[in-house]
Amino acid sequence: MTINYRETIARYLPSSAEQAKLRGISERSIQSINSFCNSSGINADSILVGSVAKGTNLAGADIDLFIRFDQNYGRKEMESLGLEIGHKTLANGKEKYAEHPYVTGFIDDVKIDIVPCFRIGVGQKKISSVDRTPLHTEFVRKNLTKEGIFQVQLLKVFAKSIGVYGSEVTISGFSGYICELLIIRYGTFEDVLKIFSQGRGRFLLGEPEDVGKFKDHVVIIDPVDRDRNAAAAISVESLSKMRVASKLYLKDWDNSFFSLEPQKRKANRTDRGTAIRIFSVPRPDYTDDVVFPQALKMLNAISSVLEQGGFEPLDGDAEVKDKVRVLIECRRDTPPEFITHQGPPADSDNVIDFINRWRGKDVLRGPYIRGERLYVDLKGTRKSIEESVRENIMSLNIGKGLNRYREEIEINRPDLKDHDTLVEKFLSRGLF
Amino acid sequence: MTINYRETIARYLPSSAEQAKLRGISERSIQSINSFCNSSGINADSILVGSVAKGTNLAGADIDLFIRFDQNYGRKEMESLGLEIGHKTLANGKEKYAEHPYVTGFIDDVKIDIVPCFRIGVGQKKISSVDRTPLHTEFVRKNLTKEGIFQVQLLKVFAKSIGVYGSEVTISGFSGYICELLIIRYGTFEDVLKIFSQGRGRFLLGEPEDVGKFKDHVVIIDPVDRDRNAAAAISVESLSKMRVASKLYLKDWDNSFFSLEPQKRKANRTDRGTAIRIFSVPRPDYTDDVVFPQALKMLNAISSVLEQGGFEPLDGDAEVKDKVRVLIECRRDTPPEFITHQGPPADSDNVIDFINRWRGKDVLRGPYIRGERLYVDLKGTRKSIEESVRENIMSLNIGKGLNRYREEIEINRPDLKDHDTLVEKFLSRGLF
Repeated sequence: MTINYRETIARYLPSSAEQAKLRGISERSIQSINSFCNSSGINADSILVGSVAKGTNLAGADIDLFIRFDQNYGRKEMESLGLEIGHKTLANGKEKYAEHPYVTGFIDDVKIDIVPCFRIGVGQKKISSVDRTPLHTEFVRKNLTKEGIFQVQLLKVFAKSIGVYGSEVTISGFSGYICELLIIRYGTFEDVLKIFSQGRGRFLLGEPEDVGKFKDHVVIIDPVDRDRNAAAAISVESLSKMRVASKLYLKDWDNSFFSLEPQKRKANRTDRGTAIRIFSVPRPDYTDDVVFPQALKMLNAISSVLEQGGFEPLDGDAEVKDKVRVLIECRRDTPPEFITHQGPPADSDNVIDFINRWRGKDVLRGPYIRGERLYVDLKGTRKSIEESVRENIMSLNIGKGLNRYREEIEINRPDLKDHDTLVEKFLSRGLF
Repeated sequence: MTINYRETIARYLPSSAEQAKLRGISERSIQSINSFCNSSGINADSILVGSVAKGTNLAGADIDLFIRFDQNYGRKEMESLGLEIGHKTLANGKEKYAEHPYVTGFIDDVKIDIVPCFRIGVGQKKISSVDRTPLHTEFVRKNLTKEGIFQVQLLKVFAKSIGVYGSEVTISGFSGYICELLIIRYGTFEDVLKIFSQGRGRFLLGEPEDVGKFKDHVVIIDPVDRDRNAAAAISVESLSKMRVASKLYLKDWDNSFFSLEPQKRKANRTDRGTAIRIFSVPRPDYTDDVVFPQALKMLNAISSVLEQGGFEPLDGDAEVKDKVRVLIECRRDTPPEFITHQGPPADSDNVIDFINRWRGKDVLRGPYIRGERLYVDLKGTRKSIEESVRENIMSLNIGKGLNRYREEIEINRPDLKDHDTLVEKFLSRGLF
């Protein structure tokens, strides 16, 4: 199929004016940093990294500047010098914190991050995890052709349109670097899609002896560090989405896979005959990348209480905004007349305790052995979801930053007709 | 702990009178078979095998006589000569069929099986699976001490008391030969129990390179044939029971683990708030070992229909008597207002079909991707268990011998107060 892909994604590519502007800002900033280092006797140099450096940026990209310090600097010194230079370069810059502190700000409405790191060579042991980034930039610049650059942009737009672009926790998808490595390895966007459409099981890319070190669903060995899985952030769900989207696109060549405009999906608000609750706590003062995994932890912890209570949690979703909110859909409002309580596996040390705890007690059946485990059928407590959760919440670990809010957890029964973002997200769930 | 085990299991051991009687019957039968073969120019000899030959029999054991034919005989000829000799030896013998036909009958009220086989050496390729049996007998006689014989009897009584003695399908437990191998390997009954009480995961016995050939939960390499797992018949449930019983016995030294008298367990007939049904079809004219696996297949097949229908099957049981009966307990009588219909995994070829089937249809939600799979939430059909099963039964495989009865399947709602054997078995399920 011959498709004019340049036309298809033209609106998402940077104009030559934008590229020139980015180049200009970068070069001026680098020069100013380097001359400052020279004049102050600081053994460091500045380098442009990230998508702008590689030319694979989509329209509206940020600039990432790194300051590479000699390894003789202590970490603290490197950090404070890094911040100092950052503030010098970005008049209204703010400090942020990832692996270590950096400065972020704007020049001519373009966002710039100025990040300090140590200078290392390929295969050399990194000191902090950002030290590899300049090597990534170098590797991609050396190995990506001009046509390859466009194929990367195409893949990025595709991944973004199905919600799997980016390694941040809320997405857990394909980073720009991963898109670049895939194009370097397989040549074109369509070839990458063919690989995903046909793949089965785990997705593995790299020499077997390197791949074998990792258990992740997606393993893509980092060419600048064979001990690193560059794809560790990709969730199994993102892999699934990429596979399903690849199959669909290669069958129907549907243009909507290159559409980044937010699409409103219709939520079916028909009563589902289930018990839906929203559990919410205040949002702690950390970034989304820190809080979102805790929201998922809270979702799982409360679900397990509901499971044990016999409410049969079916599905759930989490949202981190002003509050941390978790939606859980259960099959029923009140637990059934009896529940099968799962005991330990037969080969566990807890077998005797479990038997002593239940044998001869007023149970419905058991304890008994089925397959590899012990079980006992107990009469249900007939407690409500609210009662069960409140009774158990203090012994649950719902995440380091959220535990302090356990006592004040709010439990609401949402009206499916209300326009609540979390309810809509849940009810309108689709393929991508 | 010193326990007088001889006293404990005395009532289950054969008296010296019984042993003498078994010996007498065996020797006379062997002599008569051997002299018949001699005088008729048949190249075959008779041999006593099984527990009586090894001295490990409990009271009331059968006699197993094998006729070993030279490998030059064709299979058909061996079989017909085998039957002829069997009938000659057992006046009122009946023919039965396992791997091939054999004759079974009684002499002085003792049951005797006369089974033809081929003569093979250790490590030699068997022609039929019974050919190994004489080698098993020889191996055990060579390697089991007199004290070991008693330890085997002890282990057999223990296994029998917890319902895991015997390799027949309805038990899927530990055969006599397995008990012998365990004592030969570990020395004493208590040592075998220690091994089971401490074991984790799969139970493996044999050289790693041999064990590695098998995936069963229990692997015990047959010392006369390294390519055979002598424990293949043992189910994971039987292994679990053996482990749990070992833990309990080594803690409390409870004598009841050596009691073979049938124990009536109390069934709790309290209403469980569930939907229990019994599905029954006529019993085909095969042995239990053939029909029981089909009953389990029927149980699983109907359960999967009920699962898909949203009735949530929780548990079940099967019984093969005059009829084949299957009991299934479901969480509910009518399916819920919606069910989550599971689609294919994202890496399957059926993804597109599934999406085309459901996208844009009047569904409650989806199709959507969760983890590795696609799903769609559908409105429930609100059909009864009976309607759902009858509607789907003709497309189910409920077992080769049972499929012909699908149309006439009976579906009953049992009264838990009735004294029905299957209901009682289900309600009174305990550890052993």
